[in-house]
Amino acid sequence: MEKSGVTVSMVGNATVRRSFFLLVVLGITIFSGAAAMAQPADPLPSWTEGDLKQTIEQFVADITTAGSTHFVRPEDRIAVFDNDGTLWSEEPWVQGLFLEQLLRNAAARHPEVSEQQPYKAALAHDREFFETGGIRVMIDAVKAAMVELSREDFDAEVAKFFATARHPALDVPMSQTVYQPALELLDYLRANGFKTYICSGGGIDFMRVISADFYGIESEQVIGTSYRKELHEIDGRWELLTTSDLNPINNKDEKAINIDLHIGKRPLLVMGNAGGRGDIGMMNYSQGRKGVSLQLLIDHDDAAREFAYAEDDNASLNAAKKNGWRVISMKDDWSVIYPASDD
Amino acid sequence: MEKSGVTVSMVGNATVRRSFFLLVVLGITIFSGAAAMAQPADPLPSWTEGDLKQTIEQFVADITTAGSTHFVRPEDRIAVFDNDGTLWSEEPWVQGLFLEQLLRNAAARHPEVSEQQPYKAALAHDREFFETGGIRVMIDAVKAAMVELSREDFDAEVAKFFATARHPALDVPMSQTVYQPALELLDYLRANGFKTYICSGGGIDFMRVISADFYGIESEQVIGTSYRKELHEIDGRWELLTTSDLNPINNKDEKAINIDLHIGKRPLLVMGNAGGRGDIGMMNYSQGRKGVSLQLLIDHDDAAREFAYAEDDNASLNAAKKNGWRVISMKDDWSVIYPASDD
Repeated sequence: MEKSGVTVSMVGNATVRRSFFLLVVLGITIFSGAAAMAQPADPLPSWTEGDLKQTIEQFVADITTAGSTHFVRPEDRIAVFDNDGTLWSEEPWVQGLFLEQLLRNAAARHPEVSEQQPYKAALAHDREFFETGGIRVMIDAVKAAMVELSREDFDAEVAKFFATARHPALDVPMSQTVYQPALELLDYLRANGFKTYICSGGGIDFMRVISADFYGIESEQVIGTSYRKELHEIDGRWELLTTSDLNPINNKDEKAINIDLHIGKRPLLVMGNAGGRGDIGMMNYSQGRKGVSLQLLIDHDDAAREFAYAEDDNASLNAAKKNGWRVISMKDDWSVIYPASDD
Repeated sequence: MEKSGVTVSMVGNATVRRSFFLLVVLGITIFSGAAAMAQPADPLPSWTEGDLKQTIEQFVADITTAGSTHFVRPEDRIAVFDNDGTLWSEEPWVQGLFLEQLLRNAAARHPEVSEQQPYKAALAHDREFFETGGIRVMIDAVKAAMVELSREDFDAEVAKFFATARHPALDVPMSQTVYQPALELLDYLRANGFKTYICSGGGIDFMRVISADFYGIESEQVIGTSYRKELHEIDGRWELLTTSDLNPINNKDEKAINIDLHIGKRPLLVMGNAGGRGDIGMMNYSQGRKGVSLQLLIDHDDAAREFAYAEDDNASLNAAKKNGWRVISMKDDWSVIYPASDD
C-alpha cells in the first residue's frame, strides 16, 4: 500500500511547526486509513483470480450495499456449508475413523464383544469392512459405540480422538485436512454479517466438538444426523442417553428440512460438493428463496493435491449446470488446498 | 446520581486557568463515569427487591467474574425460556386464537368444509369447542389449517394475525401481553453475554415470526413443536410443505431432548412456569449441568393483575421445592406485569 504523498513545508515558529507536524501525522493516518478502506487486503487469497471469485465478491457486495436492489438484511444473511468434502477432505470419512476407535474403546471395556462385528473389524483395523459395508454397517457401528454414552462422555471421546488422530493418507492432524479457501470464505462471509452454519450428513454431536476450533462455527450452528435421545436420572443426575433409534439421515431433501427446523430461513448462500448427491436438496431450497441467492458446488477434480472422484450419474454437476449453480474446480479455482502446516 | 465534589480554584494565568478548567471537566467526566460504573441503573426495575432478585443478580455476577470459581465462558452462557405463561400470558392460548383465524381463512377458500369440524367451530367463534377438546383437537386443527401452506405463506398468515389480534381478556395487542420483568431479564442476560432461546410447546414456526420483535430473541433461537415437512417442486420453485405427520410435542422430557438437538449444551439458566408440568424436564436437564446453574419457575398466583392457576398435583412447585429451583411469585416478586401501554 502506498503512503499518500504529503509534502512537509518547514515554517519558522516552533509552535506552528509542531502543530503542522501533528496535522501531517494525523493527515497521513487518515489518508492511510482511507487507502486501506479503498484497497482492502484480498479476503480470499487462496482463490485464483477469475470469474468465480469475482462472482462471490460481487454477490457479497450486492447484498451488503444499503440501497442496492439486492440488499439483504443482516438477519437474513444465512450461509450453510456441507462438511465432508466441502470444509474438509472426506477420503477417508473422518467420522468413520473415530467410530472405529470408539468401537475399540467399547471392546476394551467389554471384552466379551471382541469377536463380534463391528467390534472385531475395528480391533483388526479392518478398514475394508467399514468401507465396503456401506451406510448400514456404519449406522450399526454408531449404535454399538454410542448407546451407552451420555452426551458429556461422548464429547470427551470425540475430543480424545482429535487430540491424536492423523489423516491416514495426508499424514497430518485432522485440523489440517480442512480446506484453506473454505476457511477464508467463512471468515469473509462472517465479516460481512453472515451467520455461518454446517449442515452435514455427519453426526451432529461429533461435528459440534470441533466446529468452533476448526471453522469458527459455533457448535449451536451445526446441523447433522442424530439419534433420538432419552432423559434418564442416573445417580441423582439427569442425563440424555442415546437410543438406537436413528432420526432421518441428514442428507439430500432432509438437509432442507433440517435447515428449516434449526434455522427457519432459506439460506442466502450454500456450499456443498459433488460426490454423493447429498447437497442437491439444500441447493434447491436455497435457490427457491425470493430474491438473490448463491449456490457453490465443489468438484473434486484435483487428484494431485487432494482426491479426484465423481458421481456415477453426475447428478450434482448436472443439476448445477441446469440451475446455474457455480462449480468450484479445486484444481483451477483454489491456489492452495490445505492451511500451512503447524505440525 | 451525585456529581463528585470537585472544587475549582481560580488561578491568575489564563492558559493555566483554561487547562485547569479542561482537567476539571475531564475529571468530572471520568469521576461520573466511575460513579456510573459503581452504581449501575437497576437492570431489573420490575422485580421487587428481595431474596429472589438478589439470587439472580449474584448468579450473573458469579458466572461473569473472571477468576471466580463459578466463572462460565461466554459460549456456555445459554439461557432457555419457555414461552406460554413464562414470556407472555397463556390464558387463553394465543396460538389457539391464531389457529381459529387460520381455520376461518381456510374455510373461506374452501367453503365446502364450513360444516365440518374444526372449521365449523372456528367460524362460529366456538372457543369452548377448542378449550374443552384438549390437545388432540388442537393438533387436528393445526393439521387442517397448515397442510396446504408453504413456509412463506404460513409466516404471512402469522404476521397478519399479530397485526390486528387483541387479547380477549386484557383487550390489548398481543405484544402487550408479554411480561415486562421477563423482558428485563432477557436484556440483562444478553448484556452479560448470554445467548437467549425459547423452548416451548408452541409451534416453532408460529413463534419465530414474533420472537425478535416481542423478545429480542433471534428466530433461529426458537425451539418448538413442529410437523414433518417435505420438499416439493411447485411451478419450478422448491417449497417445504407441512405434512400431517407431527413430530413429538416439545413438552416435558422432549424439551431437554430438543435443547440438545438445537443447542447441544446444557442451559446455564432456565425459566419456565407451573401450570402444565411442561418445564420440569428442561429444569432437570439444566440442573444436571456440571458446575452452577439456575432454574426459575413462575407461580401464577396473581389473580388481580394476571391469572391465578395451578396444577392439580402441584408437580412443578413440588419439584422446585425438592430440587432447590427458585419460585417466582408473580404477586410478590414482580412489581409490574405488563409493559407500559403504547396502544
